[in-house]
Amino acid sequence: MVRTQGVTAPAGFRATGIAAGIKASGATDLALVFNEGPDYAAAGVFTRNKVQAAPVLWSQQVLTTGRLRAVILNSGGANACTGPGGFQDTHATAEAVAAALSDWGTETGAIEVAVCSTGLIGDRLPMNKVLAGVSEIVHELAGGLTGGEEAARAIMTTDTVPKQVALHHPDKWTVGGMAKGAGMLAPSLATMLCVITTDAVAAPEALDRALRHAAARTFDRLDVDGASSTNDTVLLLSSGASEITPTQDELDAALLAVCDDLCAQMQADAEGVTKRVAVTVTGAATEDEAVVAARVIARDSLVKTALFGSDPNWGRVLAAVGMAPVALNADRITVAFNGFPVCVDSVGTPGAREVDLSGEDIVVTVDLAVGAATATIRTTDLSHGYVEENSAYSS
Amino acid sequence: MVRTQGVTAPAGFRATGIAAGIKASGATDLALVFNEGPDYAAAGVFTRNKVQAAPVLWSQQVLTTGRLRAVILNSGGANACTGPGGFQDTHATAEAVAAALSDWGTETGAIEVAVCSTGLIGDRLPMNKVLAGVSEIVHELAGGLTGGEEAARAIMTTDTVPKQVALHHPDKWTVGGMAKGAGMLAPSLATMLCVITTDAVAAPEALDRALRHAAARTFDRLDVDGASSTNDTVLLLSSGASEITPTQDELDAALLAVCDDLCAQMQADAEGVTKRVAVTVTGAATEDEAVVAARVIARDSLVKTALFGSDPNWGRVLAAVGMAPVALNADRITVAFNGFPVCVDSVGTPGAREVDLSGEDIVVTVDLAVGAATATIRTTDLSHGYVEENSAYSS
Repeated sequence: MVRTQGVTAPAGFRATGIAAGIKASGATDLALVFNEGPDYAAAGVFTRNKVQAAPVLWSQQVLTTGRLRAVILNSGGANACTGPGGFQDTHATAEAVAAALSDWGTETGAIEVAVCSTGLIGDRLPMNKVLAGVSEIVHELAGGLTGGEEAARAIMTTDTVPKQVALHHPDKWTVGGMAKGAGMLAPSLATMLCVITTDAVAAPEALDRALRHAAARTFDRLDVDGASSTNDTVLLLSSGASEITPTQDELDAALLAVCDDLCAQMQADAEGVTKRVAVTVTGAATEDEAVVAARVIARDSLVKTALFGSDPNWGRVLAAVGMAPVALNADRITVAFNGFPVCVDSVGTPGAREVDLSGEDIVVTVDLAVGAATATIRTTDLSHGYVEENSAYSS
Repeated sequence: MVRTQGVTAPAGFRATGIAAGIKASGATDLALVFNEGPDYAAAGVFTRNKVQAAPVLWSQQVLTTGRLRAVILNSGGANACTGPGGFQDTHATAEAVAAALSDWGTETGAIEVAVCSTGLIGDRLPMNKVLAGVSEIVHELAGGLTGGEEAARAIMTTDTVPKQVALHHPDKWTVGGMAKGAGMLAPSLATMLCVITTDAVAAPEALDRALRHAAARTFDRLDVDGASSTNDTVLLLSSGASEITPTQDELDAALLAVCDDLCAQMQADAEGVTKRVAVTVTGAATEDEAVVAARVIARDSLVKTALFGSDPNWGRVLAAVGMAPVALNADRITVAFNGFPVCVDSVGTPGAREVDLSGEDIVVTVDLAVGAATATIRTTDLSHGYVEENSAYSS
C-alpha cells in the first residue's frame, strides 16, 4: 500500500479540489470525485446519529439505487441542523454538479451525485460560492485532472495532513481512498468523510458487503471522543475499468486493508493527540462484548488523561472496565501496558507503577477471564491540546 | 439548611478526624462517625461498578443487618484491587474499631462497623498506621468530641473544601451529612463517600427507602466524568435520639434536601471545574429517557470543552443528543442556553452564536418534543485544570 495516491489511483476516476471561498481562510474547500465508468456501482455507510445533516439525508436516498457517478464534498460548513432550506441547498448542489457534468458531455442526473459536507453545525452554506465552485471544479476536471491529493486536501477541517492510500492488487485491480476526520461513529465535531474508489468489477451488493465488513472492523473501532457526528459518511465507488472481478473475499480483504490504513492515519492526526493508544480486550465472552469493554476503557476520561501524563495508573483501567455492561471475572482481570503485566488477578504487580509510557504509542491489553473473544479499539489520549482546540472552535 | 454543621448536627452522634500518617502529606486522613443511640438503624447505597473495593464488599455485608454503630473512613488509599489481603485489612480495621469502642465501654462487634476508603486504586494500606490511628481516634472520641467538620476534612482527597450540611426540621429532628468527591455513580477517581446521620426514629426499611429515593435524584444525577468509582458509598445512620418519628414523606423530603445540597457542593468543587453546568431535558417520553439524554449531553467531551470556552456551540448539543438511545423528534428539538433559545425546531436562531456564557453557571435546556417527562443532570466543563489534575495524580 502507498499513501501518495488516493481516490485517483484506480483506473476510471478523476478528482480534484479547489478553493470556492466557503472557508474564510481561503484554503481549498470543495472536492469532486468523478467515476468515468464503465460501471457506476456504489455503496455507502452513514452516521447512526438521529440528528442527520442534509447531505447525509440526500446521499442515503441516492445510494438506494446502488449507483453513483460523482461525489461532491465541501469543508467549511456541515449543513447540519439547517432545516428544509439546508436540504434544498444540498439538492441544488447535486443538481448543479449533474448539470455541469451533462454540459461537459456526460449525461448525469442529480440522483447519481452524492453530497458530503463537514464543518460547523448550524449554519447555512454560502450557496452562491458553492454553485460557482461547482462550475469551476467540473471545468477543471474536464481538463483531464486526476488530482486525488487535491481532493483529499480540500475536505480537511481540523486535520493537519491529507489522508489517502492506495492498494494495488497483484491481479491488476486497485482500491484507493481518501478520508478526513478523527473517527467513524465516534467523533462529534470531527466528522469523518471518506471516499473509496476501485476499478474492480463489482456489483453494488458486493461493494456494500465489503464496505460494511470493513467499516465495522475499522472506522467503528476508532473512538477519539465517544460521540458521533451528524455528517459521517463513507462511500465506495467502482468503475470496473480494470475489467477484473475479484472474489468477495478478495474485495473484503482489500477494503479492510484500505480502511484500516485510513483509520490509522486519522488516529495519528486526531485533535490534540500526543499518544496513539490501542486498547485490546481479550478473554471476553463474545467479540461484541470485547468491543464494548474496549470502548468503555477507550472513552474513559481518567484513563485518557493518565495516558497523556504517561502515568501507568492501571487502577483507572479496572475502574473503567468494571462499569462495562459485559461479563467479566472481577477477581481475575489482567492488565498490561505495552506488554508489561501491571495487574494480574485484579491485583497490582511489583514494578507496575514504574512502567515507561513516555513513547507516542501505548498498547493497553485487558483480559476479562471469561471467554476467548478479543477486539481492539483505537483511541488517543486526552490532552491540553484537545481541550484547547475544542474550547475555541466556532468562535 | 446550614453548611457549618454535618454528621454531628443530629443528637446522638460523635465524630472526628485525625492525621494517622496514611497520607504522605501529613494531612488528616482518618475519620470516625459514632452513633450513641438509642437506635442503631442504618442503610447504604454503593457503587454499581463490578470491580468493588474491599471496604465496599465489607460494608455491603455489614448493612444486610440494617444496623450500624460506627463508620470508619480513610483517605490516602482506596484499598481497591488489593485482593484477599486487602479484604483482610478492611476486616481487621473494623475489628480494631469494635475492640476500641468496647474497651471504652460500648460493647460493639465488627459487624456493626462500616468501612470506607478513598484514594489511589491498587495499593495496600499501611495497616500499622491505620490500626494505631484507630486507637487514637476512638480515644479522642471518648473524650467527648463532636467534630463533624474534622471528620469531613479527614476524608478529602482532591477536594479543596470539606462538604457538610444540616437540616433542622421544625418538628425537632435533624438530618446532617458530610461528603467528599465529585459524583456518585459517575466519578472514577474522585470516589464519592458520604455519611448522613439523623436523630429521627426510623426503621432500617424507612431509612433505606428515603436514601434510595434521594440518591436516585441527586448523586445519581451528578456526572462529572462519566465513570464510577470502585469505592462509592453513601451511608445513613439514625440514632433516634430526638424521639420523634417523622412520616416517610417527611423523611424522604429531608434526605432529598440534604443529598441535593451535598451534590451541589461536590459539583462546585469538582476537579478542574470552571463552570457549573445543569443539563435539563424536557419533552422526553419518560423520566428515565430524560435522564439518559441529559447524561449523554453532560458526558460529551465536545459539549464540555465548548462550555469551558464559553462557546454557545449548540450544534454539539444536537450532535450529542442525537446519539442518545431515546425517542426524540429530530426535526423539532429545541435548545436553550441560560434561557435563551439558540435552536428551535432543530435550526439555529438569530443571535444564537452571541449568547453570553462567560458566567460560572450555565443552564442547558433541551426539549425532545415527544412527551412531557423531564430530568436534570448536574455536570461541569472539561477544562485544562481537569486534564492537569488527572494526568499527574498517582505519580
